[in-house]
Amino acid sequence: MTHPSALAIVLAAGKGTRMKSALPKVLHRLAGLPMLGHVLRTAATAGIGRSSVVIGPGMEEVGQAALAIDPGLAVFVQPEQLATADAVKAAAPAYEGFAGHVLVLYGDTPLLRSETLKAVLGELDAGADVVVIGFEAADPTGYGRLLFDEKGRLAGIREEKDASTAERALTICNSGIMAFRTSETLVSLLGRIGNDNAKGEFYLTDAVALARESGLQARVVLSNPEEVLGVNARAELATAEALMQRRLRAAVMAGGATLIAPETVFFSYDTQVGQDVVIEPNVVIGPGVAIDDGVTIKGFCHIENATIGAHATVGPFARLRPGAVLAKEAHVGNFVEIKNSQVAEGAKVNHLTYIGDASIGAKANIGAGTITCNYDAFAKHKTEIGAGAFIGSNSSLVAPVKIGDGAYVGSGSVITKDVPADALAVARGSQEERAGWAAKVRERRNRDKSKPRHIDATQ
Amino acid sequence: MTHPSALAIVLAAGKGTRMKSALPKVLHRLAGLPMLGHVLRTAATAGIGRSSVVIGPGMEEVGQAALAIDPGLAVFVQPEQLATADAVKAAAPAYEGFAGHVLVLYGDTPLLRSETLKAVLGELDAGADVVVIGFEAADPTGYGRLLFDEKGRLAGIREEKDASTAERALTICNSGIMAFRTSETLVSLLGRIGNDNAKGEFYLTDAVALARESGLQARVVLSNPEEVLGVNARAELATAEALMQRRLRAAVMAGGATLIAPETVFFSYDTQVGQDVVIEPNVVIGPGVAIDDGVTIKGFCHIENATIGAHATVGPFARLRPGAVLAKEAHVGNFVEIKNSQVAEGAKVNHLTYIGDASIGAKANIGAGTITCNYDAFAKHKTEIGAGAFIGSNSSLVAPVKIGDGAYVGSGSVITKDVPADALAVARGSQEERAGWAAKVRERRNRDKSKPRHIDATQ
Amino acid sequence: MTHPSALAIVLAAGKGTRMKSALPKVLHRLAGLPMLGHVLRTAATAGIGRSSVVIGPGMEEVGQAALAIDPGLAVFVQPEQLATADAVKAAAPAYEGFAGHVLVLYGDTPLLRSETLKAVLGELDAGADVVVIGFEAADPTGYGRLLFDEKGRLAGIREEKDASTAERALTICNSGIMAFRTSETLVSLLGRIGNDNAKGEFYLTDAVALARESGLQARVVLSNPEEVLGVNARAELATAEALMQRRLRAAVMAGGATLIAPETVFFSYDTQVGQDVVIEPNVVIGPGVAIDDGVTIKGFCHIENATIGAHATVGPFARLRPGAVLAKEAHVGNFVEIKNSQVAEGAKVNHLTYIGDASIGAKANIGAGTITCNYDAFAKHKTEIGAGAFIGSNSSLVAPVKIGDGAYVGSGSVITKDVPADALAVARGSQEERAGWAAKVRERRNRDKSKPRHIDATQ
Repeated sequence: MTHPSALAIVLAAGKGTRMKSALPKVLHRLAGLPMLGHVLRTAATAGIGRSSVVIGPGMEEVGQAALAIDPGLAVFVQPEQLATADAVKAAAPAYEGFAGHVLVLYGDTPLLRSETLKAVLGELDAGADVVVIGFEAADPTGYGRLLFDEKGRLAGIREEKDASTAERALTICNSGIMAFRTSETLVSLLGRIGNDNAKGEFYLTDAVALARESGLQARVVLSNPEEVLGVNARAELATAEALMQRRLRAAVMAGGATLIAPETVFFSYDTQVGQDVVIEPNVVIGPGVAIDDGVTIKGFCHIENATIGAHATVGPFARLRPGAVLAKEAHVGNFVEIKNSQVAEGAKVNHLTYIGDASIGAKANIGAGTITCNYDAFAKHKTEIGAGAFIGSNSSLVAPVKIGDGAYVGSGSVITKDVPADALAVARGSQEERAGWAAKVRERRNRDKSKPRHIDATQ
Repeated sequence: MTHPSALAIVLAAGKGTRMKSALPKVLHRLAGLPMLGHVLRTAATAGIGRSSVVIGPGMEEVGQAALAIDPGLAVFVQPEQLATADAVKAAAPAYEGFAGHVLVLYGDTPLLRSETLKAVLGELDAGADVVVIGFEAADPTGYGRLLFDEKGRLAGIREEKDASTAERALTICNSGIMAFRTSETLVSLLGRIGNDNAKGEFYLTDAVALARESGLQARVVLSNPEEVLGVNARAELATAEALMQRRLRAAVMAGGATLIAPETVFFSYDTQVGQDVVIEPNVVIGPGVAIDDGVTIKGFCHIENATIGAHATVGPFARLRPGAVLAKEAHVGNFVEIKNSQVAEGAKVNHLTYIGDASIGAKANIGAGTITCNYDAFAKHKTEIGAGAFIGSNSSLVAPVKIGDGAYVGSGSVITKDVPADALAVARGSQEERAGWAAKVRERRNRDKSKPRHIDATQ
Repeated sequence: MTHPSALAIVLAAGKGTRMKSALPKVLHRLAGLPMLGHVLRTAATAGIGRSSVVIGPGMEEVGQAALAIDPGLAVFVQPEQLATADAVKAAAPAYEGFAGHVLVLYGDTPLLRSETLKAVLGELDAGADVVVIGFEAADPTGYGRLLFDEKGRLAGIREEKDASTAERALTICNSGIMAFRTSETLVSLLGRIGNDNAKGEFYLTDAVALARESGLQARVVLSNPEEVLGVNARAELATAEALMQRRLRAAVMAGGATLIAPETVFFSYDTQVGQDVVIEPNVVIGPGVAIDDGVTIKGFCHIENATIGAHATVGPFARLRPGAVLAKEAHVGNFVEIKNSQVAEGAKVNHLTYIGDASIGAKANIGAGTITCNYDAFAKHKTEIGAGAFIGSNSSLVAPVKIGDGAYVGSGSVITKDVPADALAVARGSQEERAGWAAKVRERRNRDKSKPRHIDATQ
């Protein structure tokens, strides 16, 4: 069941001072996407149709990032940091009069799974007025505990500092994530949450007890503890990254790819990997990468915004930058960088090469050390290499330049003019020799070591 | 004691559908060798003189791979998948009338150690008729349990679904690996295994109870649980790889090599590493590599079928491909690829270089950016560089070509003709200048930004 | 409180045969520093003003390494290996008549923290005569147990082999690290330690019981068990490295840097990392590296003795060697090696380049494949590249050479002479063509495949 009319309010106003960062906390990335983006994506995947984000004053950067992810969402500013219930009130224009369910999520809780949100929506559909996501903590110290009545129904949430010894022994804890069947329920409960506490703040958790007082139904959905990990420091960010990578790797392997050492392969949130792909140790994949069936990626590759066709081989030590598109059975080898270029079927770019702003025809062979000279200090230019062309090793192709189909460029050439199809082009100096020169120079140097002179430039 | 006349029957007919692979399961690799190869090697190391492999119909690829590993083995096809006893029967020509012990192993259980097989052979030698490899499971759920009689003797194997509550509490489990003192025992027991079960299949495990009914002796050899891990999915393959790498790393360290971060160094099943070798983090070693004493391998190296002489240094970011042979004290540095080439004692190839199909003499120095142009679109050719030669940086050596002992190649040269010993060779364009040109062009570009023009090609 | 007059005696005479190494055990490195160096640094950080090192005969290499770390320390040779008390006696000239506290540390116990040593010094200041560092072992097997009297005061140390069943159940163990309030106490206790034991050796641990017999106070400082890990084999060295890296990574993250995968980033003991630095997976940092605020280090970098200015970006696949100094906002990209060179503000060295012994001016752009030819087989020479200069791709700069401010070098040039400011320099061959040549050669080759001929050199 989809919930196009459900609304997620994502709280993202926290400063995150423990991150020690100029970047707002929720914009720190996991698997290539800001934490906030993960939460918005998860909500969308669960079928929640609308989202709002609550930011703090001066956090326009967060609002812009949120809109970049979902242009349809609404951004609200919470003027003062008076805790969660206050933050939710800041988003009132989004939910007042809104007919669907309202969920309160957190921008710094990026591991929440859509399956868990679907369970929350299911409870709301089944009649729950308020739903809280809880989790069973191995060590509950520091968390609020969920309290249940004698019938096993959720009765309230007790903060640790207010808990009795018996209550402290409870291990079902509050994640902070809550949902309300209707906006009326939310508005009504919010109106009754007070700030009669040490800090003078308004806590959304109070809504549970208030709901029960009003005879409303409160229920719990249990999540995996890792899903509700909040990220407040760099070490927690690293922990969250590790957990997310574990999920991504498991999914790739379940789909029929071999990861020789899964713990050394890093995916992005959107990486697509086909069947019978083999990925060697130590591969880093940024956003926007699709890898077709039967591809082999050898060790030490770095790949971003690139497409790799079926049965292509990449690496070791290859870097595919944005816009690299390899057709099927293409070969990209070691110490090769490819940027904004198309490599057609069966073409080979095997060694120590830079291919930028270029197209390489089918079955062309690019020799070791080839450089497309795509930048002339003012603009970038294109290099077009025809099908079946052979570029001799250590050549420079000074763009804009076209090498015709089947053309042959001699090794070490600096090609500045187009080469017609099937032609040979050579552009290099002629070889000259001085017999015995090296022996003489060695002798002279050995005689007079004190006087450094340059040799090569003086021949 | 060796058992030249013992026979291993390796069952390899499983389809491995959970692998989601076009490659038969037992050909997936661990530490560079197909799983089936590990099992065959382990059997050979334990002193088992003959092996047979049982494959399914259409799995000729597996048979060929098995023969590539051991040309002396026999391959049998099990026409229908009617379980383990049926599979063993398919190999009947191998053991009928055979005088020695017969062991039944599995192609997807690659971590079994030869020490464990030796213990099995020892029990057979000591009079056991049937031996089962068992293991103590932390969580036995899903495994068949080994049953013992009141005297502690193996009495039978109970599948979990048939087990009583008391039997389910047992933790000694069946690995499936069994051995028979003589082929007569095996043939006689196989003949009595029926298929009166839910699936109508023939289970080898029934042999234990049948043996006891006939008054034969059945014994257990306990293995480490990790040894009998069966690989049925990519995640299990990754787990098996991790366990195998742990063994390989421990052996290398015990031999006197330093692995700064063992968990980031990947060996192959046959890697040889000397004493006082230091390997930095992130090194991937494929099959066929021997590393002599005192070698330093810096981070980010990828090495396959290569030999590294004593006290050589390699990397960081070096790739040694098949046929790279480094003599002692050779230096191979960053972004260097070496393929099918000999690098003699003390020679240096330190930066951004491709050496293919070449020989480099003792103490030669290969400048940064040197490329051996070994391929002319039709064939590969050799480059020979003499002892003490100096190849200036960014040179291209167009093979076939010989650089004599002590010769000197000027930087940036494209060498197409042999260079005699002790000679100087230069092959490059002469330098021309236009004063003020760059300033003028910048000015013009700043005036007229709208008109992209290429600069470099038009001088 | 600092203890300028406290003295650390570091025992470093052990042969370390289990390391299987020609290098003395305490010189094996952790996080880029010999183990002995860690112990000496920790002592200094704790405020201990003087150190002595006790080595075995023929271990001059250890003494030299110790002096290289702290030229003010004294090195003593223990003629025979008669255990710890004997080793301490070898250092008698250092402490006889010395007024301060004396601590006995171990060169193969490199994880000890200065906080723990400060706690030891605090106990000595507070009146303890003898202090032992103990630790609570999860499994105490093999360790000496600390014995306490009925008042909870340290009473002695019992070696496991001499322990009663009740004593074996004790879990507070002896680390071997001891301290003495005065040298008189030490001298007096040492004089009473006998060798009436199986091996005829002199054990410093006996000092505790002897002290108590004399009415002296003995106290325990408890350390974390990992701090007192002794390194005797390569596997333990790897364990110690992992523990040290964990500390280093935690400190870097706590300081406000993001490590996407902390377990894949390797620091040295002295690495400095600023705030809002982002380090991608797989980065190896050797000694002498400082990384300023806002720097991004992409995956697969290898960095030693280098300085990286604020907001610079490095990698992926970059190698910074000793003397690489990047100013702020410099860009160093893939397959780039920089050695002993300055890269000024905003300059770019993005692809497949070797920069050695060079200076690069502000906002200069170094094209892909550029090589500074700094070595002429006899000496290293400097390359100076001016501010705003543009070096066309695949150029060779033959040092010594100066490229003036704003100068422009055409792609593929071999520059052997200085280029004035704002000038254009080109040094390459002119392009020639033969129409249809490639088609003809292909045809001929297809006709006569049996006769290998080289193509490129014969045009």
